[in-house]
Amino acid sequence: MGERNIVSFKESAEEMLASQDYEALRELLEELHPYEVATLLEELEEPEQLIILELMSTDMAAETLEHLEYEDQYRLLDHLEDTVARKIIAAMPSDVIADLVMAIHPHQAQKILGMVPEEYLQKIEYLMTYPEDSAGGIMSLEYIAVRERWTVERVIEHFRKVGRKESIASYIYVVDNIGQLVGVVSLKELLLSHPKTPISEIMHTNVVAIPVDADQEEAAKLMSQYDLLVLPVVDSRGRLVGVITADDIMDVIEEESTEDIHKLGGSKPLDLPYMHSSLITLFSKRINWLIFLFAVQAVTSNILKHFQSVLSSVVALSFFIPLFTDTGGNSGTQASSLIIRSLALGEVTTKDATRILIKELQVSAMLGATMGIVGYFFAWAVAGSVEIAIAVAITLFVVLVVSSTIGAMLPIIGSKLGIDPAVFSAPLITTVVDIVALTLYFNIATLILGIK
Amino acid sequence: MGERNIVSFKESAEEMLASQDYEALRELLEELHPYEVATLLEELEEPEQLIILELMSTDMAAETLEHLEYEDQYRLLDHLEDTVARKIIAAMPSDVIADLVMAIHPHQAQKILGMVPEEYLQKIEYLMTYPEDSAGGIMSLEYIAVRERWTVERVIEHFRKVGRKESIASYIYVVDNIGQLVGVVSLKELLLSHPKTPISEIMHTNVVAIPVDADQEEAAKLMSQYDLLVLPVVDSRGRLVGVITADDIMDVIEEESTEDIHKLGGSKPLDLPYMHSSLITLFSKRINWLIFLFAVQAVTSNILKHFQSVLSSVVALSFFIPLFTDTGGNSGTQASSLIIRSLALGEVTTKDATRILIKELQVSAMLGATMGIVGYFFAWAVAGSVEIAIAVAITLFVVLVVSSTIGAMLPIIGSKLGIDPAVFSAPLITTVVDIVALTLYFNIATLILGIK
Repeated sequence: MGERNIVSFKESAEEMLASQDYEALRELLEELHPYEVATLLEELEEPEQLIILELMSTDMAAETLEHLEYEDQYRLLDHLEDTVARKIIAAMPSDVIADLVMAIHPHQAQKILGMVPEEYLQKIEYLMTYPEDSAGGIMSLEYIAVRERWTVERVIEHFRKVGRKESIASYIYVVDNIGQLVGVVSLKELLLSHPKTPISEIMHTNVVAIPVDADQEEAAKLMSQYDLLVLPVVDSRGRLVGVITADDIMDVIEEESTEDIHKLGGSKPLDLPYMHSSLITLFSKRINWLIFLFAVQAVTSNILKHFQSVLSSVVALSFFIPLFTDTGGNSGTQASSLIIRSLALGEVTTKDATRILIKELQVSAMLGATMGIVGYFFAWAVAGSVEIAIAVAITLFVVLVVSSTIGAMLPIIGSKLGIDPAVFSAPLITTVVDIVALTLYFNIATLILGIK
Repeated sequence: MGERNIVSFKESAEEMLASQDYEALRELLEELHPYEVATLLEELEEPEQLIILELMSTDMAAETLEHLEYEDQYRLLDHLEDTVARKIIAAMPSDVIADLVMAIHPHQAQKILGMVPEEYLQKIEYLMTYPEDSAGGIMSLEYIAVRERWTVERVIEHFRKVGRKESIASYIYVVDNIGQLVGVVSLKELLLSHPKTPISEIMHTNVVAIPVDADQEEAAKLMSQYDLLVLPVVDSRGRLVGVITADDIMDVIEEESTEDIHKLGGSKPLDLPYMHSSLITLFSKRINWLIFLFAVQAVTSNILKHFQSVLSSVVALSFFIPLFTDTGGNSGTQASSLIIRSLALGEVTTKDATRILIKELQVSAMLGATMGIVGYFFAWAVAGSVEIAIAVAITLFVVLVVSSTIGAMLPIIGSKLGIDPAVFSAPLITTVVDIVALTLYFNIATLILGIK
């Protein structure tokens, strides 16, 4: 089979649309995966998009819509023939409809909810009560739950009755008479057991579950640590209320990493991909941070002004200003990105603060000593003065130690105070380190050069 | 059920170990998940670790080992009684053994391979032929394959015979007579179908598969785009050779994001978590980059030296040096982190270069105009000179435009040349921008202030 060639599917589909060969197109669509149809739809105009959705089976059309942006999902459902749209909506999982309804304008949401089958409405309204980044916000209601005293035979019979509608059905959950989750059985174990065995004998009771109001990041951490493909969600009384599947969690992990990378780069996280973000969005996500940092960095100008007389008497001192601020920023960024990532992955916690501080002091002393030696020879070559070279070397040593320590500790302090550690990004740390470095440098230089 | 309290399990286990109440400990262990036992083992000394592994069922012990570092896996298997170790190894999936054998010293690997059951050796040696970051390197051989002409009944019979040993069994793959992957059926569909139906009638033929030599990042992308829980792996002739599961892919996604974040922070990616990395590792992953950047940044010293006479006649010009270098670095970092992440997620490709360039020019002109106005008033307040204020404002505008453009384009150019875009990290972009900013500033200042 090898890799599927999406480009060639698209070309064939476009030819069939042009020649109105809808029978061939229907056959082609049957061979495609919903994700592939979605990427095809993204390149077509609305009339063709509607033709394709109508040619597909209702289930396939429903799955295809899931892969589109919310505004496109709404637009297509709104413009499809009413009966077709209603059928597709009835085939969409309740959590997908809930996400769509919460993402679009309330007026549009009313239209969609008006096409939802009566018996689904309650489920959707229930899902809509949870924030989109909580376990409840990403869970699905399509699980199968059985009672612990049922036999394997009865469970299989129940499964045959309800399983067709529930797309997530590799595991069957066992609940007691008040709905509390007490066990889990895989379909495989069911198939391998004797029909008369009570389910309580074969179920696993060490079920890992997550509270419905927990953060989605917590769900991602649990699933990745415990190597789970499906994670059950329970309410405050331990009752099973939904399940989270690994494919949704992959999106969460990517989303959270993207947010961290954007923050580390010093802009607010974008809600939409870069190419879909408007100029004004890109501008506003970036300008606040630039102005804020400028205001903080303005302190450096005042420090330089303060040492004006030193600067005028030995202009050569100014040659090394960018080196200190840059090197300090670099080593601070290195340390902070290592610690921020370790915090995000749960490898270190705020309790490790002292151990990290000791480790960073040692590493940064090694880095500082090396850079101090490099800096000494460089400064001596450029400025031709041993005094300046000594001032540069000492400053570099201290800058390395201070910046690494600040870089490592700021995220931990932030995390302790409940501030997202990723806010302590390269730009912020650079700024803090600049102020420390310049003050230090001019004081050392004044001392060594004996300038008043 | 709620969240499982790992801390309280650990305390109970330690008490039972101290009082040698092994019967109670065995019962407690049965209630724990292998991941939980692994975190418990990490806090114990070797004699206790061995007691716990011996108390557990062979399957549980095998699963627990998977969650430990390779060196610990080897040490425990080596120090366990030979018959116990052999049983545990026989219960470990072949891909887990292959990963272990490849991670440890060849001499140690020989010892482990000596304990592997004869019939497993070939599988393990086959897996060892693939690089660890390829699809073949992360795939498992524990899948079930059947022939397309078999009936549902026969498939279920086959499943009952071989399914017990294969831990990954939510899907059954269908192959033709030369082993080529032609379809997939879920266990659910099998259960819901009439026993006499040929498997070819219910199987899905639009199977998404990945070539065995593809990169693991490619596998992660496919599974996340297609929302797959299991991805089959095929050789160059389309024959099914393994499967990749979503829990392994979650680790890949986290690993790749961590690597990107470390590179963006300007250090080589760490192979081990921060706390497990030695001082010398942390030093050597960071020092090369610091020295390299220092060498590049040294150019700034030469630029300042070149404009020495300008600096001595108007010392106030030096007050704003850190502002330019920092602001340029900040906006360059913003732009590059947005683009690097978009490239990593596949949201933009190198083909979008022109569109991105136009977008960045527009956004950065807006950012530059805003910062130029802010900078004008600030410089006027600090230096009290309209000429200097104008030089600062113009420089800031140009710095913003140049740094955003460089920040956005460098990762794309790198990607085109086959260089990992994450190398174009904050520190590197800052350095490039510094050089541009300082040259510009002094030329503009010389022009406006009329200094010779």
